[in-house]
Amino acid sequence: MNFLNEIAQRFPDAISFAPGRPFEGFFATEHVHDYLRRFERYLKEEKGYDETQVRRTFFQYGRTKGIIHELIARHLEVDEGITVDPESVVVTVGCQEAMFLALRALRADERDVLLAVSPSYVGLTGATRLVDMPVLEVAGGPKGVDLDSLERVVREARARGLRPRACYLVADFANPSGVSLDLATRHALLELAERMDLLLLEDNPYGYFNADGERLPTLKSLDAGGRVVYLGSFAKTGLPGARIGYLVADQRVVGADGRTGLLADELSKIKSMLTVNTSPIAQAVIAGKLLTHGFDLYGANAREIALYRDNLRHLLAGLQRHFPSDGDSGVSWNEPRGGFFIVLSLPFVADDALLEVSARDYGVLWTPMSYFGSDPETACQLRLSYSQVDAAQIDEGLARLAALLSAQRQDRT
Amino acid sequence: MNFLNEIAQRFPDAISFAPGRPFEGFFATEHVHDYLRRFERYLKEEKGYDETQVRRTFFQYGRTKGIIHELIARHLEVDEGITVDPESVVVTVGCQEAMFLALRALRADERDVLLAVSPSYVGLTGATRLVDMPVLEVAGGPKGVDLDSLERVVREARARGLRPRACYLVADFANPSGVSLDLATRHALLELAERMDLLLLEDNPYGYFNADGERLPTLKSLDAGGRVVYLGSFAKTGLPGARIGYLVADQRVVGADGRTGLLADELSKIKSMLTVNTSPIAQAVIAGKLLTHGFDLYGANAREIALYRDNLRHLLAGLQRHFPSDGDSGVSWNEPRGGFFIVLSLPFVADDALLEVSARDYGVLWTPMSYFGSDPETACQLRLSYSQVDAAQIDEGLARLAALLSAQRQDRT
Repeated sequence: MNFLNEIAQRFPDAISFAPGRPFEGFFATEHVHDYLRRFERYLKEEKGYDETQVRRTFFQYGRTKGIIHELIARHLEVDEGITVDPESVVVTVGCQEAMFLALRALRADERDVLLAVSPSYVGLTGATRLVDMPVLEVAGGPKGVDLDSLERVVREARARGLRPRACYLVADFANPSGVSLDLATRHALLELAERMDLLLLEDNPYGYFNADGERLPTLKSLDAGGRVVYLGSFAKTGLPGARIGYLVADQRVVGADGRTGLLADELSKIKSMLTVNTSPIAQAVIAGKLLTHGFDLYGANAREIALYRDNLRHLLAGLQRHFPSDGDSGVSWNEPRGGFFIVLSLPFVADDALLEVSARDYGVLWTPMSYFGSDPETACQLRLSYSQVDAAQIDEGLARLAALLSAQRQDRT
Repeated sequence: MNFLNEIAQRFPDAISFAPGRPFEGFFATEHVHDYLRRFERYLKEEKGYDETQVRRTFFQYGRTKGIIHELIARHLEVDEGITVDPESVVVTVGCQEAMFLALRALRADERDVLLAVSPSYVGLTGATRLVDMPVLEVAGGPKGVDLDSLERVVREARARGLRPRACYLVADFANPSGVSLDLATRHALLELAERMDLLLLEDNPYGYFNADGERLPTLKSLDAGGRVVYLGSFAKTGLPGARIGYLVADQRVVGADGRTGLLADELSKIKSMLTVNTSPIAQAVIAGKLLTHGFDLYGANAREIALYRDNLRHLLAGLQRHFPSDGDSGVSWNEPRGGFFIVLSLPFVADDALLEVSARDYGVLWTPMSYFGSDPETACQLRLSYSQVDAAQIDEGLARLAALLSAQRQDRT
């Protein structure tokens, strides 16, 4: 990723299919003020706070697990159909801190390993490095997770004396693959987790951005056995600049003090040593957005959902034009049902060297899939993100990409 | 600390000398709006940003090292007389994340240990636990750091094959002791660090709150040899609810990639795996406060400085009345030059059991010093914080404390 960032800085005018950032065009800085005032009104009118309590809420350190846990629980009820105890919610500094907390809690010694569906989000890989926790890759495949691979990896790890503590995955529109689990796979995965006594870390930043109107239940909403720790993010549905994420960790666990309690409370102890608490002002911004939209972030993102859908269709149509299926380009791609990303497969390697040529000579940026896993298949793949481009940029960007690939193909034949 | 929090929740009406929180009475939530608008104006007028750039700054993910590094550098110039390269500043989620980043960067394997002047801030101890880094205690003593102890601990550690990577201390009005290093000790400490090839982690949350008008130069401002990593906090001088801290890490180091660069850039890599970046909205609040006050936080805190000074004087006078030096109470205390804390020494143990009696039967809270270190001397000591009480609370709180101590003394004789 460092190389990509460097390239992006060296070629700022290149059309970029690289960053997984949300579209910012519907945002105005005034929203921040509106959201803060909305939360202040909530504290006074719904919570019955006086001026001193309101002032203290904005000004002082706050509760380690966060101050908007009740609002997040209401949002999960409205948007996901999940009823969670607000005490099981831990508000975090973005989902990245949530991943760190979960991994740090799961990692007791060098026998503990994490499973991750591959190709996998780079932020997850980073968090595992910080806690010195090896990652065992589970094949993703066309279904989003290859259950045979998962079972095999768990068995082999246990046979080697390792303790697979959890399996990380994005069930909806994964980063980088764009792939989602179908409903049957979700059920089968939960059954497997139960049978193998395995925890699942479900990360869900993109779930609302379906392009076909179909929303599948999250793993957490199907989780009767308490197998799922849910990693929530407001970076794509709320406002990335607030840096607010959260966990739902309603498992009962035995803590270091021998007492049984919520996993959320164990995570809270770790958070107190890491960031003390999440900025109440930043939390207030997200709370204000939740309150403004009646806790319905799916509804609040209607314009974004439509925009990403249109971009995906435009991108797929453009790819079809440039690389017709009856042609000999050797280029193919997947067709995700939504999210921010699609994956292109090339007849040759898509590495940093090709990225540099692409940026310098063709003015177009993308992300090599080899950043996300060690599967040999990824070597010839690249990720295209379509969340921050418009139709004209998609057209021009694809034209440039096609020119690059055509030239490369001629060079190599 | 968990026990103290529990006690505080069970006895919410007790007068509390426990929390190290800043006084909030001069704050209004409207300040948050003012600060955000001031930063927005700065982006437009001083940085020349257009609407799109301003919107992006507030809305999107930002630079990993932070977006207010230039303003923090100007603040350090104005308030501390330090000229630092803004690129050496890493903005963090409070000073707690700053400590974690520094420790995680310094910890390569199990031979690496941290030295800490004892008694030591509990947040530091927490961060060392998260990175599995043992702490070797260095005696604090009346000068704030016992240099003979420091040298001995380093030598003994090295003789055992350990690598003392740094020594953590608060040079001004330490938490919990309230003690400050005098100027000669600062110079001698820097010389010792140079001679022993040791890094110093200087944490400075309370430096501005002197009660006698005298400000001593920070270790960082005297640091000709690049021995000091400066841990900055806006929690007491800015606004705790923003959760903004920072590091100044201008040392040149060889990174994992073999390239020489700023320590700040190594810390930034760790931060990208921990919290990605600090909320730009939270940063904007602190930036607005800095801009509003011409980067002079010492001046901005004139009322708080006076209030803490008056509280300290009132507390010391009250202690003198209740426990006169020609009396037989056996109670003594130190007389810090400022900060938030003083330490009382009792003729018996000041532990959780006594704290519970104190809260339940006398309605007064304080912090056992044994929370902050293993020195046997701390067993009979307690910390009184005077930042969040007024004169009447000090009077009443001290009367209650005196009644507790008197009753305990009679019980034990």
